[in-house]
Amino acid sequence: MADGRLVIGTRRYSSWSLRGWLCVRLAGLDVVEEVIPLAQPDTATRIAALSPSGKVPFLEHWNVRVWDSLAIAEYCAEIEPSLWPSDPVARGFARSVSAEMHAGFQGLRASMPMNLGRHDRPLANGVSDAAAADIARIDALWTEARDSFGDHGAYLFGTQFGNADAMFAPVVTRFLSYGVALSPVARRYAEAVRRHPLVAEWYNEAAAELETWLSDRYESVD
Amino acid sequence: MADGRLVIGTRRYSSWSLRGWLCVRLAGLDVVEEVIPLAQPDTATRIAALSPSGKVPFLEHWNVRVWDSLAIAEYCAEIEPSLWPSDPVARGFARSVSAEMHAGFQGLRASMPMNLGRHDRPLANGVSDAAAADIARIDALWTEARDSFGDHGAYLFGTQFGNADAMFAPVVTRFLSYGVALSPVARRYAEAVRRHPLVAEWYNEAAAELETWLSDRYESVD
Repeated sequence: MADGRLVIGTRRYSSWSLRGWLCVRLAGLDVVEEVIPLAQPDTATRIAALSPSGKVPFLEHWNVRVWDSLAIAEYCAEIEPSLWPSDPVARGFARSVSAEMHAGFQGLRASMPMNLGRHDRPLANGVSDAAAADIARIDALWTEARDSFGDHGAYLFGTQFGNADAMFAPVVTRFLSYGVALSPVARRYAEAVRRHPLVAEWYNEAAAELETWLSDRYESVD
Repeated sequence: MADGRLVIGTRRYSSWSLRGWLCVRLAGLDVVEEVIPLAQPDTATRIAALSPSGKVPFLEHWNVRVWDSLAIAEYCAEIEPSLWPSDPVARGFARSVSAEMHAGFQGLRASMPMNLGRHDRPLANGVSDAAAADIARIDALWTEARDSFGDHGAYLFGTQFGNADAMFAPVVTRFLSYGVALSPVARRYAEAVRRHPLVAEWYNEAAAELETWLSDRYESVD
């Protein structure tokens, strides 16, 4: 009997679900995962029946209900405090860039949607000015975090993959999908995130989810 | 000698500054307030010289630097934990709706900008569908918070004005500025927020700031 459930959208496309799922797994919460396929006729109805904001991810843990990935990150950090850096200066930086991710980078998000099935294939019409500005800002903040707080670890704030890394993990997938040019520091960081066992697990589950979805529809076709 | 500084934009118009300022004042931080006038030729340059994200509010406290109002809210709650509800269920709700505010309600924000000099004057062309949906969602979440956790206090989670109230305070000003119709519970809550001493102080300082700005420009006109 699990302690609750985490409702997420299609793994291949749901970037916010990836953030919430990483935090929940990093904190070791024992929850059942329920996947609601996105972009289906009943998607909105199914999510609205569960989630107060009508969006995923949505976490129920014991009697606590939390929606929105940044709120889930804070909830998980109450249970597993190491999800934020222990140093107050680093923690202030980590929370600031996580909040920046949460509310911003619309140019990047609009033009390069997360698609885990796309690999190193640039946009046909090039990168918009808004997306280019977002990419430059993200590269700069990753580099500043690594230079100031990385302490020879692979992640933004050292050896532990934490909430800030979870917030940027879907951006890493976008950079890899669309073949975005990065500084050497940012490039190494992106590759480390891609190799993290939980990120690799999510990619694998996304691929398996797609296979199941296709089989259900087309295996009876002759 | 103060412990740091809080950089904010023009009080009459800077809704995110109001959020950060409320949290900082509620936590009792001893910081100097620096106001950067918005929409001036040098606004972007002046903010970029201080704030890593190029946005206000920006807090420096001791050696910790925090930008983005939600990150400031969390920083302040580390110093003054009562800014979030003590009950975990209420706290999960408070963080979820604060995050919803942080990343959402674009329809409302785009069509009804904060303007503390506007009083009870509806939009000439009516409310867009997107804004109407945002208003309905906010009314519903305020009502749910008050019904479930309000405990006969005036604010969302009881007798203490906290981080979630700070996040929604600029929305209260919009509802009052644009004469938005609300449910009775939401209406009473909005009026309580408007009367809170810190919100009243911000309104007064916004008016004084405008007077000074006008005097500097026009008192030499004859």
